[in-house]
Amino acid sequence: MKGFAMLGIGKIGWIEKDKPACGPLDAIVRPLAVAPCTSDVHTVWEGALGERKDMILGHEACGVVEEVGSLVRDFKPGDRVIVSAITPDWGDLNSQRGFAMHSTGMLAGWKFSNFKDGVFGEYFHVNEADANLALLPEGMDPGVGTMVCDMMPTGFHAAELADVQFGDDVAVIGIGPVGLMAVAGCALRGAANIYCVGTRAKCREVATAYGATGFLSYKDGDLAEQILDLTHGKGVDRVCIAGGTVDTFDEAIRMVKPGGIVSSVNYLGSGDYVKIPRIEWGCGMGHKQIRCGLMPGGRLRSEKLAALVTAGRVDPGLMLTHKYHGFDHMEEALMMMRSKAADLIKPVVYID
Amino acid sequence: MKGFAMLGIGKIGWIEKDKPACGPLDAIVRPLAVAPCTSDVHTVWEGALGERKDMILGHEACGVVEEVGSLVRDFKPGDRVIVSAITPDWGDLNSQRGFAMHSTGMLAGWKFSNFKDGVFGEYFHVNEADANLALLPEGMDPGVGTMVCDMMPTGFHAAELADVQFGDDVAVIGIGPVGLMAVAGCALRGAANIYCVGTRAKCREVATAYGATGFLSYKDGDLAEQILDLTHGKGVDRVCIAGGTVDTFDEAIRMVKPGGIVSSVNYLGSGDYVKIPRIEWGCGMGHKQIRCGLMPGGRLRSEKLAALVTAGRVDPGLMLTHKYHGFDHMEEALMMMRSKAADLIKPVVYID
Amino acid sequence: MKGFAMLGIGKIGWIEKDKPACGPLDAIVRPLAVAPCTSDVHTVWEGALGERKDMILGHEACGVVEEVGSLVRDFKPGDRVIVSAITPDWGDLNSQRGFAMHSTGMLAGWKFSNFKDGVFGEYFHVNEADANLALLPEGMDPGVGTMVCDMMPTGFHAAELADVQFGDDVAVIGIGPVGLMAVAGCALRGAANIYCVGTRAKCREVATAYGATGFLSYKDGDLAEQILDLTHGKGVDRVCIAGGTVDTFDEAIRMVKPGGIVSSVNYLGSGDYVKIPRIEWGCGMGHKQIRCGLMPGGRLRSEKLAALVTAGRVDPGLMLTHKYHGFDHMEEALMMMRSKAADLIKPVVYID
Amino acid sequence: MKGFAMLGIGKIGWIEKDKPACGPLDAIVRPLAVAPCTSDVHTVWEGALGERKDMILGHEACGVVEEVGSLVRDFKPGDRVIVSAITPDWGDLNSQRGFAMHSTGMLAGWKFSNFKDGVFGEYFHVNEADANLALLPEGMDPGVGTMVCDMMPTGFHAAELADVQFGDDVAVIGIGPVGLMAVAGCALRGAANIYCVGTRAKCREVATAYGATGFLSYKDGDLAEQILDLTHGKGVDRVCIAGGTVDTFDEAIRMVKPGGIVSSVNYLGSGDYVKIPRIEWGCGMGHKQIRCGLMPGGRLRSEKLAALVTAGRVDPGLMLTHKYHGFDHMEEALMMMRSKAADLIKPVVYID
Repeated sequence: MKGFAMLGIGKIGWIEKDKPACGPLDAIVRPLAVAPCTSDVHTVWEGALGERKDMILGHEACGVVEEVGSLVRDFKPGDRVIVSAITPDWGDLNSQRGFAMHSTGMLAGWKFSNFKDGVFGEYFHVNEADANLALLPEGMDPGVGTMVCDMMPTGFHAAELADVQFGDDVAVIGIGPVGLMAVAGCALRGAANIYCVGTRAKCREVATAYGATGFLSYKDGDLAEQILDLTHGKGVDRVCIAGGTVDTFDEAIRMVKPGGIVSSVNYLGSGDYVKIPRIEWGCGMGHKQIRCGLMPGGRLRSEKLAALVTAGRVDPGLMLTHKYHGFDHMEEALMMMRSKAADLIKPVVYID
Repeated sequence: MKGFAMLGIGKIGWIEKDKPACGPLDAIVRPLAVAPCTSDVHTVWEGALGERKDMILGHEACGVVEEVGSLVRDFKPGDRVIVSAITPDWGDLNSQRGFAMHSTGMLAGWKFSNFKDGVFGEYFHVNEADANLALLPEGMDPGVGTMVCDMMPTGFHAAELADVQFGDDVAVIGIGPVGLMAVAGCALRGAANIYCVGTRAKCREVATAYGATGFLSYKDGDLAEQILDLTHGKGVDRVCIAGGTVDTFDEAIRMVKPGGIVSSVNYLGSGDYVKIPRIEWGCGMGHKQIRCGLMPGGRLRSEKLAALVTAGRVDPGLMLTHKYHGFDHMEEALMMMRSKAADLIKPVVYID
Repeated sequence: MKGFAMLGIGKIGWIEKDKPACGPLDAIVRPLAVAPCTSDVHTVWEGALGERKDMILGHEACGVVEEVGSLVRDFKPGDRVIVSAITPDWGDLNSQRGFAMHSTGMLAGWKFSNFKDGVFGEYFHVNEADANLALLPEGMDPGVGTMVCDMMPTGFHAAELADVQFGDDVAVIGIGPVGLMAVAGCALRGAANIYCVGTRAKCREVATAYGATGFLSYKDGDLAEQILDLTHGKGVDRVCIAGGTVDTFDEAIRMVKPGGIVSSVNYLGSGDYVKIPRIEWGCGMGHKQIRCGLMPGGRLRSEKLAALVTAGRVDPGLMLTHKYHGFDHMEEALMMMRSKAADLIKPVVYID
Repeated sequence: MKGFAMLGIGKIGWIEKDKPACGPLDAIVRPLAVAPCTSDVHTVWEGALGERKDMILGHEACGVVEEVGSLVRDFKPGDRVIVSAITPDWGDLNSQRGFAMHSTGMLAGWKFSNFKDGVFGEYFHVNEADANLALLPEGMDPGVGTMVCDMMPTGFHAAELADVQFGDDVAVIGIGPVGLMAVAGCALRGAANIYCVGTRAKCREVATAYGATGFLSYKDGDLAEQILDLTHGKGVDRVCIAGGTVDTFDEAIRMVKPGGIVSSVNYLGSGDYVKIPRIEWGCGMGHKQIRCGLMPGGRLRSEKLAALVTAGRVDPGLMLTHKYHGFDHMEEALMMMRSKAADLIKPVVYID
């Protein structure tokens, strides 16, 4: 079978591989729609995971079940499914502990285009199919469905980690696709004002549709000072970090109230230390909690987020600014994610 | 001063009383808008609180501060304020425990028209003014503001007690004003499907505006069976009770999933025992939690809910179906609450 | 192979069965020590699970791994293990929801001597071995280990559900083995005073060793009144129910403070409705939470509770009042559990 | 009246001041026993709070009520009381938010020897007496009672912030008096193994009495590596920081499991940034939560912790290594806290 792969750091292209084998708990899935992610860009061009040779890329896909293992009960060939980007081993001790995304090791619930081939192939392999697939709801566009794989669960996790309460004022740092979903998630957990850091017009337009009430820019100076100005010196109840660097936490801590929470779902690619400013952290006594984490994956998560889309609570389709048809456009879509056109939020490739 | 009072069980009318005295922590407030509540009806005609003589009614009001005590720092005469229906003693042990609504005793955070005169007078008294008043946001109609006193915090508390999570399916039993606010609260905490029990057309219309996705009626048989049918036998993740009787819990437990939560903010006026069905409660092992409680009151609560209104997340004004102008209409408004016209949700009286 | 079985309601005896087959994720275990449970008594003589024919009894066992399936990674033949009484399907949606004990259905995480043969046989079958077995710590007596299967996780779950906080006053209703473990669990979560309901001298002695600070008896009148007397009218912060009937909740609600929690891990075998007293429940507004549930099972749970024993935090061996050696004594041990001698807490049978 | 004061940075001595005035909610208290704290040392010799002139020191005291304000209901002259080191304004918005220790501003619940005179005087002032005093239990030594003012609530808060669960493995960094109370708190919340960082023999002896199961030393190399060795590479579930610097978090994050929690109750006196190691924090995705905070103060807290002492769950008196009698020894006791003799844990001064 064919797959669109990372050939080595900085190199991409199509390769031939054997169709993956299906163990007793597994499924083999044929993609209907796939979406490149900034992580794919980091993996290839920044070597974020280290060297990888001939590894098929991609972890956001909806597809059709081609084959299932002997112990799979709930799915059968022909089922149209959403495939979670994170596919845990559910019996693992970390899963029993409540952190399935870290099953078998920190971050190791992330398998696609990390420990095994990803979803940009003619077929791909899904472990523990009953626990990691979800039916694509009838009538849901598979391209919209790909937003349930990673962008929506990741962005919404920022709101969950932040434990947003009714009437909270929230700052969301970064309004790429994950940040936009964080905005939607905060609005859907009852935030009052949502102040967003980001400048691109298309992103601000969609952020507003998702519930943003104000915007800030790095270009206008220190973010914490801007937030303190906007809130008459009070600061915000919650900060969701969906962009930036290890230094972003400095501003986040300075803009949050005592007793507030800073959450982060941003992959930190460089820097030795995340910086927490001692004094504004109350000299270690201010009850400004810091919570970060990889998205929860698996079937229940996909089903519940898909239900939100079906019920009309949020439309992740607003983010699909660039649609391609046919595997031929795989490279174009990925390069678009890399070059980030001004009007880009997310590209999606439909495999017709 | 004049006040509209309960003269005794079943009897109402205007009385003359001394203007209340203002202690060092207190405020005296003159109402701008007040709203009768079903509780007022229960208090007068069902004797829900027992006998009360010449007690001024009402606990939902926005007003103007007339006078403040010597220790009050944040409010001054002339401030337009929202007055929480529940005005705790914040230093009490139950408050320190996290349950300010039960300060000085179970339910004793509720003082207006219970332990002291209510808000349907020319003036009324507010204890711990700094902690129990909130500024009426600029531009907010005082009638809309009265919904922040009791209906919104009570209904939203149902969603909080139920700990609604992203994508949850929820049943809301009762869609009077509290139930409607429970619907809005569940939608604003990320519920997917919200199934509502209630038949009145006006209520269904507003429920839909607040996020309801389906409706049921007692007239169509057992509620739990209807919910199980609608959810393909799975049941709902959460049930919010905002109406009914001690028997309603029977249906609620039967319609919720194992591991689910039944919350209630409904005042149970009669019956010896709340009924929990043993078998469907998993013989006491099904992890179907039961949580109930009086609304949290106080300034922070009012400020945060008012912020939700100001940010445009919810419009409690949709519930104000009957508007009156002038204290003269006090009795008419209360009798309307008692008779419950088909198109009534909430009456409000503006004191111009 | 031989197994000690329920032949039908009210009938027990030894039967011959095929050794169970081992699927790819499973293990076959040979018992080292087993303990009869009150549930076994209910199953046989009260028909608590309905009719069962020739079903091997028992769900508390430590043993030696005899065989493992092809996908099992962490255990091998010869390993000495603790076998959780509850052996969930970890990928199930209820497990992903955080309620693995209800995987595949309410209470359905309980499989031994319920949906399949139990542990009172020469061999028994364990599903998802990597996730449901735990190594018996070196030096731990297998008889003591059997207390980690059910008594300890169930009793400790009462303390968890009650969310005991530092300095809480707690009432524990029932001081059979589960109640005794609830006492130990509450002491180990920071309770101050622990008032226990129970009369048997041996149980009171062990309860005191586990941290009980006072005792009550049904014989001395209404329990709630006794607790209110002991606490100067304040009531307790938490109640753990580990015995009694559907009526016990009436007393529990009446003795708990507003904002308090009543937890229950007691199997309720009869009665249509659990009774919650309306008035003392604050007319549905007192924030007296009611939480009940089957114990969490699985490997992590067993490992963590065994670690508490190894670290010397609690000695469940104090409960082993009756020790038998050899399968021959199986019936004697079970009948002892049924007849409940005055000095009985738990019998255990070592298979030498 | 006389008071033992900070005259300026680096200077201490007795001064004369007016007896404090008693507002309507306040109490004036005469000390029975007081304890110097490391914070007093930091305040005087490190200028931790900046310059202070003629400010009476001290925030740990038990005493006798001398006078109460007109609105005080629960205390009267002659009552023997424990005075919380943190005395919040309970109606403040931060208090309503659940963070009374930050009422009126971050850390501003700490008033004694910070914003007003402390407890090392003939008399001292307590705000909101009903909410911030607690009766000294009959039979409790006032010296032991001083441990309930700050050491016990602070150390126990480390265990609370860490949300220790049954069977958790915990590392406690620092075993001065706060760290020792963290050890006791972790043991009392159900930790299995408690690994302590600290070298002094007396501290290790008392730590063992409080539940420590092992010890480490900075002198033996990197703490995280030592912990990973001790736990066979798994790390610990929780880390409680009760000593060290901004760099200590680096080691703490590296020794905790994914999904684990690092709590801190250590005052960080210097350094610009707290250092969180990016990679071992899972590149911001490891769910290693960081929680820190000033102790919760007030009456309920004091009552509940005193109840733990009375019930025999913990004996903070083990920490009172140096006892002095008479105000004359105030300076000697404080200098002892500064010089830290090898066998010192806590000095206490009884005012006879």
